[in-house]
Amino acid sequence: MQISWEQLYAQRTGRMKSSAIRELLKITRRPDMISFSGGLPAPEVFPAEKMARVAQHILRTDGAQALQYGPTEGYPPLRELIAQRMTQDGLRLTAENVLITTGSQQALDLLGKIFFDPGDTVLVESPTYMGALTSWNPYEVEYMTLPSDQHGLITANLDDALRAEPKCLYVLPTFQNPGGTTLPLERRRQLIAAINRRGVPVIEDDPYGQLRFEGEALPSLLLLDSQQQARNGGAYQGNIIYVGTFSKVLAPGLRVAWVVAPGEVIRKLVQAKQGADLHTASLNQMIVYELVREGFIEQHLPEMLRLYRERRDVMLEALARYFPPGASWTHPEGGLFLWVTLPEWMDATEVLRAAVERGVAFVPGASFHARGGGANTMRLNFSHSSPEKLREGVARLGQVLYEMSEKKVNS
Amino acid sequence: MQISWEQLYAQRTGRMKSSAIRELLKITRRPDMISFSGGLPAPEVFPAEKMARVAQHILRTDGAQALQYGPTEGYPPLRELIAQRMTQDGLRLTAENVLITTGSQQALDLLGKIFFDPGDTVLVESPTYMGALTSWNPYEVEYMTLPSDQHGLITANLDDALRAEPKCLYVLPTFQNPGGTTLPLERRRQLIAAINRRGVPVIEDDPYGQLRFEGEALPSLLLLDSQQQARNGGAYQGNIIYVGTFSKVLAPGLRVAWVVAPGEVIRKLVQAKQGADLHTASLNQMIVYELVREGFIEQHLPEMLRLYRERRDVMLEALARYFPPGASWTHPEGGLFLWVTLPEWMDATEVLRAAVERGVAFVPGASFHARGGGANTMRLNFSHSSPEKLREGVARLGQVLYEMSEKKVNS
Repeated sequence: MQISWEQLYAQRTGRMKSSAIRELLKITRRPDMISFSGGLPAPEVFPAEKMARVAQHILRTDGAQALQYGPTEGYPPLRELIAQRMTQDGLRLTAENVLITTGSQQALDLLGKIFFDPGDTVLVESPTYMGALTSWNPYEVEYMTLPSDQHGLITANLDDALRAEPKCLYVLPTFQNPGGTTLPLERRRQLIAAINRRGVPVIEDDPYGQLRFEGEALPSLLLLDSQQQARNGGAYQGNIIYVGTFSKVLAPGLRVAWVVAPGEVIRKLVQAKQGADLHTASLNQMIVYELVREGFIEQHLPEMLRLYRERRDVMLEALARYFPPGASWTHPEGGLFLWVTLPEWMDATEVLRAAVERGVAFVPGASFHARGGGANTMRLNFSHSSPEKLREGVARLGQVLYEMSEKKVNS
Repeated sequence: MQISWEQLYAQRTGRMKSSAIRELLKITRRPDMISFSGGLPAPEVFPAEKMARVAQHILRTDGAQALQYGPTEGYPPLRELIAQRMTQDGLRLTAENVLITTGSQQALDLLGKIFFDPGDTVLVESPTYMGALTSWNPYEVEYMTLPSDQHGLITANLDDALRAEPKCLYVLPTFQNPGGTTLPLERRRQLIAAINRRGVPVIEDDPYGQLRFEGEALPSLLLLDSQQQARNGGAYQGNIIYVGTFSKVLAPGLRVAWVVAPGEVIRKLVQAKQGADLHTASLNQMIVYELVREGFIEQHLPEMLRLYRERRDVMLEALARYFPPGASWTHPEGGLFLWVTLPEWMDATEVLRAAVERGVAFVPGASFHARGGGANTMRLNFSHSSPEKLREGVARLGQVLYEMSEKKVNS
């Protein structure tokens, strides 16, 4: 009897369709394409030679551990080191608060697995990281969106949204993907006050926090919440679950990230991870541990930040020069992306179709909206292209926009 | 407001409890413990020096790719190579039939995610690999168990079980975990005939197939099914989904495995993997590709098999010498485990408690039974301990068993 696979798929797979945009963007893998679409770090700054030496050393001196199964929780020295590095006044962490994950994408998936029942409501920013939606759609959650502006999530009316008793709030406060925005200190405080009034946990996704090339560093929500609770004399309650990653400061190809949470949440995540992939690759965790331990990230970051700042500047200049009046964009102080808002009547998916023909790609902003909207917005990545390609790509996009404007005037 | 995490967990987490056995086995990580409990390959045969050179070479010559994000489907040359290597008369595979996963544990999780709705029935062997149950419990499936003997799954009455319309049959036909049993050719044919009559797909989990150190190789269910369909003149329908891994022939610490399935199933799995961890570590896939491409597995296997055969023999001899009459065990022709059946009245969990005090650990067989039973059985791993420890450990276990028998006689 011939099997009809279609009939066998679980109901949840109905929420797992590949988007039309993703299909369109497949073309953009052509090597001649100027792509602002991915969230790819610049390979020029990957510490490949350093990693080659470290990997070799680990395999030669401790191959038996690097190649063997390891604990689901993660390589113990790496958990310990992350806890130490994140510990500050008012935030005391131990290895028990840290789980190593296979990229932060896995952290999001595991959080969904342990927290979300079908029909649960998750509060997200609009726009938000679409990969979180990809992780959580199979858990059949509903999204409630919160508006944001050039400073990120608008926190003034957060209380109203929390009254609907969402399961949690998911937020990227620093160099947001896709917005490139950073939540100011005052909004961070408002957010924390609001969620603590209502007892709603926060998932703070912070892949880019260390990639600041301008302005002053801001405390994470995790740190702020913990400091405030310490000042109030209470023990740390851990209402913020923090997701960090080495993908952007070292290399995404290693797939090493982590979650910080109260010990009991970590234990539940460990149960979920046991079924998901047993543990994150031992060799990769040991490479990361070596590099972090010897302070390599701090040595390495300045070069990376110089490069990213230069590229952001090139893109900002090109946008000012080539984009038509009526378009506006964010001014990110770090991270990999900026966000363009086109005139209301423009459809960024239409722009993409025309742009791909000119050899330029980006992600239309609608993809980052959990409940529609944002048709006239676009996410541009500036980290992965050379200054020449940044200029050329923005120029071609500008041309597409001018032509669409002319067509509209003439129609 | 203080968050009560307990109240926030999804319903499915009710099925994700860590077992008491797992907690008990945590003690067995003590370095002085003789442990037959894990499924760990012998680190003595890890090709650490070879990997050190290959990793270094890849990072020096293609670091930009090894450290960058990669396609969710897997590193294209590795997919291609796996498809080529598995292609034989009657089984033609292309890269489109292969998905690279983060260990075969992830393959099981993704298969559960795309196929299992709450309440679905999965047919499993009794005993079966408990990691599959760990993956699938969160999808709230029910298990129907099929009896097995020293030749693995008993296929004679499979038709009756299939009449209940299970979602799929999960089976480890070769050097089964935990049984150490291998399904004979005739049973393989019966199994395939039965599932094709009923149109029930099979998940064939084959982590140990290449670890044969005695007897003649048998065709996988995937190959047999495909050959039979080719003989019948039909195009390959792909009713068998095959899960393979490099964990046992190269090293588990790399976390590189794969699934073979019809292209449309692979595409659905890719959607699930996108949300689960984006992709498997690029560096690790490239290391595996290099080693497989240059025929390293074939060079390396004989040494590994010699070692495993020797260890199996030592354990079999020790069992014959130290275990009391009334205990029996399987005679595996490959793989990592053998399976002991104690007299009916004995409880292997009680045995474990006494054994741990003597510094020996194993996994009680009850853990591998999806619906109870097997209280008087135990899984012993022979791959990870030296011959001296194998003898000493079995001797101590034998002592525990004799003492329990005496106690029973005297009570």
